[in-house]
Amino acid sequence: MLSWRAHRALVLRGIRYYSRPAAYVLPHTIKQLLASSPDSEINTTLTGFVRSIRKQKHVAFADISDGSTPFPLQAVIESDGFESDIIHRITSGSNLKLTGKLVKSAGGGQEWDFDVREVEILGHCDPAYPIQKKTHTHEHLRANAHLRPRTDETSSMLRTRALLNRSILHPPIITSNDTEGAGETFRVSPTSEPLEPLELTESDSSTSEVKPEFFGVPAFLSVSAQLHLEALAHSLSRVYTLSPSFRAERSQTNRHLAEFWMLEAELQLATPSLGPLLDVVEGLLRSVFDTYTRSTDAMVRFPEAKAARHALETEWRRVTYTHALEELNRAHDQGVFVKPAGKGKGKDIVPRPMWGQGLRSEHERYLARDSPVFVTDYPADIKPFYMRLNEESTTPPTVACFDLLLPGLGELVGGSVREERLDRLDAALNQRGMVMDELAWYRDLRLYGGGPHAGFGLGFERLVSFVTGLENVRECIAFPRAFGKMKV
Amino acid sequence: MLSWRAHRALVLRGIRYYSRPAAYVLPHTIKQLLASSPDSEINTTLTGFVRSIRKQKHVAFADISDGSTPFPLQAVIESDGFESDIIHRITSGSNLKLTGKLVKSAGGGQEWDFDVREVEILGHCDPAYPIQKKTHTHEHLRANAHLRPRTDETSSMLRTRALLNRSILHPPIITSNDTEGAGETFRVSPTSEPLEPLELTESDSSTSEVKPEFFGVPAFLSVSAQLHLEALAHSLSRVYTLSPSFRAERSQTNRHLAEFWMLEAELQLATPSLGPLLDVVEGLLRSVFDTYTRSTDAMVRFPEAKAARHALETEWRRVTYTHALEELNRAHDQGVFVKPAGKGKGKDIVPRPMWGQGLRSEHERYLARDSPVFVTDYPADIKPFYMRLNEESTTPPTVACFDLLLPGLGELVGGSVREERLDRLDAALNQRGMVMDELAWYRDLRLYGGGPHAGFGLGFERLVSFVTGLENVRECIAFPRAFGKMKV
Repeated sequence: MLSWRAHRALVLRGIRYYSRPAAYVLPHTIKQLLASSPDSEINTTLTGFVRSIRKQKHVAFADISDGSTPFPLQAVIESDGFESDIIHRITSGSNLKLTGKLVKSAGGGQEWDFDVREVEILGHCDPAYPIQKKTHTHEHLRANAHLRPRTDETSSMLRTRALLNRSILHPPIITSNDTEGAGETFRVSPTSEPLEPLELTESDSSTSEVKPEFFGVPAFLSVSAQLHLEALAHSLSRVYTLSPSFRAERSQTNRHLAEFWMLEAELQLATPSLGPLLDVVEGLLRSVFDTYTRSTDAMVRFPEAKAARHALETEWRRVTYTHALEELNRAHDQGVFVKPAGKGKGKDIVPRPMWGQGLRSEHERYLARDSPVFVTDYPADIKPFYMRLNEESTTPPTVACFDLLLPGLGELVGGSVREERLDRLDAALNQRGMVMDELAWYRDLRLYGGGPHAGFGLGFERLVSFVTGLENVRECIAFPRAFGKMKV
Repeated sequence: MLSWRAHRALVLRGIRYYSRPAAYVLPHTIKQLLASSPDSEINTTLTGFVRSIRKQKHVAFADISDGSTPFPLQAVIESDGFESDIIHRITSGSNLKLTGKLVKSAGGGQEWDFDVREVEILGHCDPAYPIQKKTHTHEHLRANAHLRPRTDETSSMLRTRALLNRSILHPPIITSNDTEGAGETFRVSPTSEPLEPLELTESDSSTSEVKPEFFGVPAFLSVSAQLHLEALAHSLSRVYTLSPSFRAERSQTNRHLAEFWMLEAELQLATPSLGPLLDVVEGLLRSVFDTYTRSTDAMVRFPEAKAARHALETEWRRVTYTHALEELNRAHDQGVFVKPAGKGKGKDIVPRPMWGQGLRSEHERYLARDSPVFVTDYPADIKPFYMRLNEESTTPPTVACFDLLLPGLGELVGGSVREERLDRLDAALNQRGMVMDELAWYRDLRLYGGGPHAGFGLGFERLVSFVTGLENVRECIAFPRAFGKMKV
């Protein structure tokens, strides 16, 4: 929409401007109405949905919402003014066009009422409407994903997504490669053409036996934009994207979706060290949390915004994987992980961590018990080929990487310095038996002036979950896709 | 990154703030350096790629670019200051870390030079580097899509995309339905599972014979977010998204990609009329063009920005399809479409338009010959089921829709008022033999309080093409995907 400023600028510059700005063209939103001289005597027209309605003999009170704010506006409709019939036909879920003006509310609870002079039903709502005022289960709402945006919770979540979201570059969605190893990807083919199964044998670099495909090569849905962002960072220095990613995971947890959005960034560095990357991630998240805690939706719908507030007030620790293991072993010594009662009482509920293995979620939760924590420098063997080898590493090799763990959530961000040295990159690829041909272009980035760079990926739905307190990521996206689930 | 304002706000509010803002952590970009006291005596460190280098006996002049601006910075490296060996090793494409300061340029051409005190090669560039200063063909650059972001043209195009781009809501990418009719979609399945061909028989609404799929139902890549945006507009009133869309088109034109980005919007209206929608689209585009023509990239890399400037200065016409046909017939009468020479001389190069058929591109170009033009109210039979029927239509029915045609480009935006009346929607679905089950949720939007609403879709790469003058949309996206083409 044309802003007032842009409109005025056009007028001042003498450019003939034929179109009226959207503010004139569309009816006021409730937010605009409340913001602009609410004590005006002038009648205004607005449209919105009925959240709920109470009907008395000569008057009806309807809570009207148009999604522009978390606050419904109470419309006072006196039945004398209209054919009484029309009020009879207004139900929850109806779509109304109302003309009237704001008046100081006589009742308590809200500052302004909307005194209705004219009412028109733009859309009737069938009595079977599955969204009633009472609280519904998340399962019921997911089954009605096309209607749940009208609930307080989902509309607030969507406003929160919009607040958190700024998108810049567009990496490809359909790719010929797979960032994190095969097996969990989706394959893409024209609907009209049957697809033969891919032979997924190890290191079979000859693709000559594969049937011609739409794109000439097998096509997959992107699991991460990282490799392509690295190419862009080798021109634009600092790039980021918020774009969809896909994993064909069959697990049904409240942390996983088959289609999710990731904020990913790549930055050129002057030295290949992890410190600046952690500073950028921490700075970014503190800024996001600060903005969020001051937003209207945080204040109204998720009033505690406890997790974000707490994260802003604490120091974020930075510990190496090796030190984290020492801390966890001390906790085991102190009986932190001992089962207090029932079967297996007195025994550790989880085995002690072993150097060279990933961290269990129980251990991650312990490390992030008080504050966000960056765990850095994991063993090279459990991390992907593109992470930078720590040369000074004691005994088994580690890589310059991190996971950011948040209290109550676990991993939100993962990232690393990227291996910019071609010989080490080739060694890492060889060690993993990875096909060189497909990654020839990625190797080129090192061959042709590649320098130190680093990046990270942040699961956008997990961020929404953390700030809103909505536990399941399926409630953090408008139309969730997961194994066996695609309702709308 | 944390803005200065956010940083200061945190400090003023007394919140302990441990992370330093990104401005301190990362080296200055060239843009930041030029903006902040360029006559400073303090040495600064920056990193960037060598666009070109001229070496003389005791001094080398290297054009350095880090993507932050379209202007390279000339680095003056006196060989006395370093082992002369290092200058020998710097070539086009090298990645350098430079410490030095800005000085008034002695030569012409630019205001500032960077007087280098220290130089470090962060990444050597192999002599086979396929991006040399001379102009390359677009084909050559596409084959090196991972390196072409380092060219002036592609980096300017990417900055333009970032400028044009604001993203808000995230509709799903994987869907169970197809907005515009089957046949051109991509199908999605887990890589590890062979997929059986879908029986695409007409109106076969029984899905019971289809093998169980990952999502429980056949899954496709979205061709448009429209239907899902309509669901969101029925809560949030005004929504838009910039998200990827997919068409399995085999045509190799310079207007089509298999993966492209679309700006789509849906708006609740007080009355089901087309006027406000056209005003919004025109206002949006005028604002975008205005911003673009004042951007640095428009001034430097695409200095004429002719198309956008011209569009700002003209009146945008609005004609109905029926009137457009009259105009085209008059043009045929006047010999506008007559071939002037060679075989077929004196005959019309295109047949006269027929009411009830789509417009040919030659006719679209003629209609938009002088200025952008909205062509409205097309015959219902050649448009999709969701467009609103014009009741007052003379003789054959038309729908309340538009195509916006731009000079030199053709269609940029298409949109319509949506059919909010359930009986007319059902009639349109029946007439097209469409499966009701799959669209049950879409019908629900009418059943439960649906009111007048309208929306549009804008091809983002076409917008980039129009403002930059880059003719082929494959040059308007970082990593193009088209039939038979997926290089990187």
